[in-house]
Amino acid sequence: MAEMGDLIKMVQEFRDKRNWKQFHNPKDLAISLTLEATEVLEHFQWKSKEEMETYVKSHKAEIGEELADVLYWVFLMGSDLDIDLSQAFIEKLKKNDAKYPVDKASGNHKKYTELQ
Amino acid sequence: MAEMGDLIKMVQEFRDKRNWKQFHNPKDLAISLTLEATEVLEHFQWKSKEEMETYVKSHKAEIGEELADVLYWVFLMGSDLDIDLSQAFIEKLKKNDAKYPVDKASGNHKKYTELQ
Amino acid sequence: MAEMGDLIKMVQEFRDKRNWKQFHNPKDLAISLTLEATEVLEHFQWKSKEEMETYVKSHKAEIGEELADVLYWVFLMGSDLDIDLSQAFIEKLKKNDAKYPVDKASGNHKKYTELQ
Amino acid sequence: MAEMGDLIKMVQEFRDKRNWKQFHNPKDLAISLTLEATEVLEHFQWKSKEEMETYVKSHKAEIGEELADVLYWVFLMGSDLDIDLSQAFIEKLKKNDAKYPVDKASGNHKKYTELQ
Repeated sequence: MAEMGDLIKMVQEFRDKRNWKQFHNPKDLAISLTLEATEVLEHFQWKSKEEMETYVKSHKAEIGEELADVLYWVFLMGSDLDIDLSQAFIEKLKKNDAKYPVDKASGNHKKYTELQ
Repeated sequence: MAEMGDLIKMVQEFRDKRNWKQFHNPKDLAISLTLEATEVLEHFQWKSKEEMETYVKSHKAEIGEELADVLYWVFLMGSDLDIDLSQAFIEKLKKNDAKYPVDKASGNHKKYTELQ
Repeated sequence: MAEMGDLIKMVQEFRDKRNWKQFHNPKDLAISLTLEATEVLEHFQWKSKEEMETYVKSHKAEIGEELADVLYWVFLMGSDLDIDLSQAFIEKLKKNDAKYPVDKASGNHKKYTELQ
Repeated sequence: MAEMGDLIKMVQEFRDKRNWKQFHNPKDLAISLTLEATEVLEHFQWKSKEEMETYVKSHKAEIGEELADVLYWVFLMGSDLDIDLSQAFIEKLKKNDAKYPVDKASGNHKKYTELQ
């Protein structure tokens, strides 16, 4: 896989070539992020567990595109707000690691739902 | 920045150590993704452009955590559905590149909003 | 049940007594509406069909509160944009009635999912 | 305006005539509610305050339809979960009334944002 930093650079270049930064602000970026997340969700609406299993196998490209759209806005927001996303990610995972000790959380549904 | 593949491996390990995969299915992963996206959005609610500018400077860590949570679910879903996220991302960007030719889209608000 | 118009008047009065209209605009109202909708969704996350059946019986008050919060923003937006919500509702239902003829849509999952 | 109870009866009849209740469960209803809320939000994305003012005047019917779609799912969920929505609404408003005393909350942005 690519360096995340390289993917972020690609997004920046994509936008800058089009001179679109002038239209961007955090609120509208976050709205875009939310709308794209719900497009992922839309794929699974009304589907039973069995229907989903069949569906995801035959729709990998479509779901991949929606996930890519989510990444697009995450990367752009990280870039605009000068946030080091890979560092933020690693730190958050460490935080969760401490919050959900393996011995207590292991296979524990209750502990798990409290993660959310 | 880190390889995106390495970050994805970290998520997989985090989950597997806790034996949480048994609770996961695409619909609930996508719900989590949506909920985390709205937590990003919540930061900017009711704020004017000026208020946002001040806010984002003093809340980089908090916003970074929310973006990390979004990445967590994107990575987990990509992993569970066997989607190569960096390839999906690059292909989607190429598609958008063709869809929004630089000469027509440049600085064009109308073209831009049609991207969504 | 109450007249919907009376409930809408209650929202208007609630806001006007607090002099809050100055902070409102359609974008932030719609963000609030979205955030409250996801709070409803949060109640059902990670729950199996059986878990949901038990849960909804013991959490009617909590879910009722979240649905009330959604109504609050729908009513306020309808009011601010001078939209007659009960008329809009009846017209939309007529439209869907024509779109999903009973004989074709009856018990038809496929037709149903296309409603979305 | 109509009695809210009458609108709810219309939704129930619309669904029952099509024999669609078999496909419904709280999680998917809440997903639908969220998706419709984001369709309202989509109308205001990327628009400045001035652009919104012009837009809402010329798009009352379209926005009204989206708000009607949100109401559809609120009404259906209230009905399926046996929640008296107008009572839930009135009680929530009373709760907020106590939480945001007029003398302290009046014209107070800070207090206001804490409402969310």
